[in-house]
Amino acid sequence: MVRHGSTPERPPPRAARLGEIQPFHVMQLLNRARELEARGRDIVHMEIGEPDFPTAGPLVSAAVDSLHRGNTGYTPAGGLPTLREAIAGHYAESSGVDVPAERIFVTPGASGALMVAMALLLDSGQRVLLPDPGYPCNRNFVRHLDGVPVSVPVAAETGFQPTLADLERYWHEDCVAAIVGSPANPTGTVMALSQLAAVRDWLVARGAALVVDEIYHGLTYGVDLRSALAVRDDVFIVNSFSKYFGMTGWRLGWLVVPPGYEGAAMRLAQNLYIAAPTPSQHAALACFTLQARTEFEARRQLFLERRDFLMPALEELGFGIPARPEGAFYIYADCGALGWDGATLSTRLLEEAGVAITPGLDFGSNGTDRFVRLAYTSSLERLHEGVRRMRAWLAS
Amino acid sequence: MVRHGSTPERPPPRAARLGEIQPFHVMQLLNRARELEARGRDIVHMEIGEPDFPTAGPLVSAAVDSLHRGNTGYTPAGGLPTLREAIAGHYAESSGVDVPAERIFVTPGASGALMVAMALLLDSGQRVLLPDPGYPCNRNFVRHLDGVPVSVPVAAETGFQPTLADLERYWHEDCVAAIVGSPANPTGTVMALSQLAAVRDWLVARGAALVVDEIYHGLTYGVDLRSALAVRDDVFIVNSFSKYFGMTGWRLGWLVVPPGYEGAAMRLAQNLYIAAPTPSQHAALACFTLQARTEFEARRQLFLERRDFLMPALEELGFGIPARPEGAFYIYADCGALGWDGATLSTRLLEEAGVAITPGLDFGSNGTDRFVRLAYTSSLERLHEGVRRMRAWLAS
Repeated sequence: MVRHGSTPERPPPRAARLGEIQPFHVMQLLNRARELEARGRDIVHMEIGEPDFPTAGPLVSAAVDSLHRGNTGYTPAGGLPTLREAIAGHYAESSGVDVPAERIFVTPGASGALMVAMALLLDSGQRVLLPDPGYPCNRNFVRHLDGVPVSVPVAAETGFQPTLADLERYWHEDCVAAIVGSPANPTGTVMALSQLAAVRDWLVARGAALVVDEIYHGLTYGVDLRSALAVRDDVFIVNSFSKYFGMTGWRLGWLVVPPGYEGAAMRLAQNLYIAAPTPSQHAALACFTLQARTEFEARRQLFLERRDFLMPALEELGFGIPARPEGAFYIYADCGALGWDGATLSTRLLEEAGVAITPGLDFGSNGTDRFVRLAYTSSLERLHEGVRRMRAWLAS
Repeated sequence: MVRHGSTPERPPPRAARLGEIQPFHVMQLLNRARELEARGRDIVHMEIGEPDFPTAGPLVSAAVDSLHRGNTGYTPAGGLPTLREAIAGHYAESSGVDVPAERIFVTPGASGALMVAMALLLDSGQRVLLPDPGYPCNRNFVRHLDGVPVSVPVAAETGFQPTLADLERYWHEDCVAAIVGSPANPTGTVMALSQLAAVRDWLVARGAALVVDEIYHGLTYGVDLRSALAVRDDVFIVNSFSKYFGMTGWRLGWLVVPPGYEGAAMRLAQNLYIAAPTPSQHAALACFTLQARTEFEARRQLFLERRDFLMPALEELGFGIPARPEGAFYIYADCGALGWDGATLSTRLLEEAGVAITPGLDFGSNGTDRFVRLAYTSSLERLHEGVRRMRAWLAS
């Protein structure tokens, strides 16, 4: 292509954050898996953080009906009032807590929720505490605002969830928030409500806020997990319709803000994204029907069966699972005893055994090189096949 | 509600930007208009920046078909490859320019595009040049990253578009970009390609980038406007499926990045929003069919008729229209000669005449208090009614 225009005297601008926002290892792996599939190789996918179910029928029907009624314009910036009320009702039912709809903002994915939360709290140069290992995008939302993500190493002994002593060690007066996940990615571990309350109290006393990523709420197995809102009214809650509700591609989530942040959150929503997608919001209204809930619970049961197969199967192969995963659809497994680091194991399993998993390195630097994350977002049959291939490869 | 937890020793954190991101006057006005309507008043809406047409049938059908085929998962972060190719084809057809699909990123609305562009270019404390009057969210995208939006007053004589002399006056070595709109909001004016090229050359020589907001492209009347890409390959282009393509609520836009920014843009997309909404992307694929284009052109013809009615009608009422609007669906009208400032006129017309318009103050501080913006996003019949009401009110 011909380049027009004058020759620049100075190089083109590039923001400093670009050097800090690194690609995920799993993306390269995913691309390689697709290449192999394009050449006819069969790959068992245990790397993907997306449920393998299509969106449930009642939700699709609700979207289609709404489209046929001509609902294609913007909604209010905070979301459809009926959807905000439905989410408030969901908290009443699932967590026994009364959250005013005015504090609930429907967002373009949990991404939009995290973006607004960070924009409410964080100035450039300020710090946010993040457990390591943890969800890798979170630190990049901090870097996006030229903030400083502070990795807080967390131990298997405390379920890879931060203790007050962990936070104390990395505290700095420039800290404005901590983001914790429960159930967490990549570990699938949950944080007791009493611990969430203690962390909130510790932060609030220091003028910082607690942000709880609850996007895997609803996907717990054998534990009954209420929202952090059940014990503290003034935490920021990030949630999503992607996981339990199975709406990944619709890009819909929500943010609950503490009292006093409603006006600022609304102004940020108006400016940063105008409103969440309208068809998605109409689909989401059907999430709270009995028919949809029955479907979601059936799917949760399938995830439970998969976890209950995969966890002992991995241990039998020699993986260590130092903290029991009780939610989400991930197992964070130590491959050190197998004689492999996570990155090499991931690459070789893909190339030589046709099994795609995620290296722990994507989730931080706290011993993550010894770990891999396995997602049970494939059918039980495919998971059996994946385990069979890993067993054969490890034995060879 | 009972507040749990300890009493804070320090106040809760609030980012400094919250003091700078102000609500739009038009929002208050819109809420008041809805209140009046709820009480039974009839309001002529000339304040809304959203086409009054529902999304075209072929697009809705494409979305519904795709949903029924189960396309509800994430797309790649850059967008559906077929959609990126279709947009590249659109540039070839509409602007005679070859843009590689790899440089086109499908985004959650033009908002997502502007967010990625700013994240690529702007560090905290750096400056972005913005014409005043101009689209008010743009300065807030700069503030979002703790950047400094620099208002560049632009004159009616140059169509409210910046000249090199205008930019020179506000240049500072911390400037990394200028954002210009063509067709522009609120003025509806377009910028000649030769001028866009000159502005790009001037910026690039100084190590800054040109971002062109082309979200109203396609909606021009009597002028044939090609993309800035037709004259310069290395500008950032923000575009949207909302306006010409009539997809507001679907939240879909795109960003074209200069060569060399593709990798960083992809990483930002993966982190900041994962992907644009999938149903919206499948709907958008139908935008480039003959059937849809015929519909879009018929709608453009209606907008043209509305402008050609409203512009002389406003002048006859005593409004000044110092720069001819040739695109978008806005008229930026001076009400000074009528003896009113824009804010008072907007409030009183709503309360006393049942006509909703936007005060110029929302678009900057460069003489904007003398102006109002009228959107021709209502039917010709309703615009007639609005003009009739304004005439009666002004005469009373």
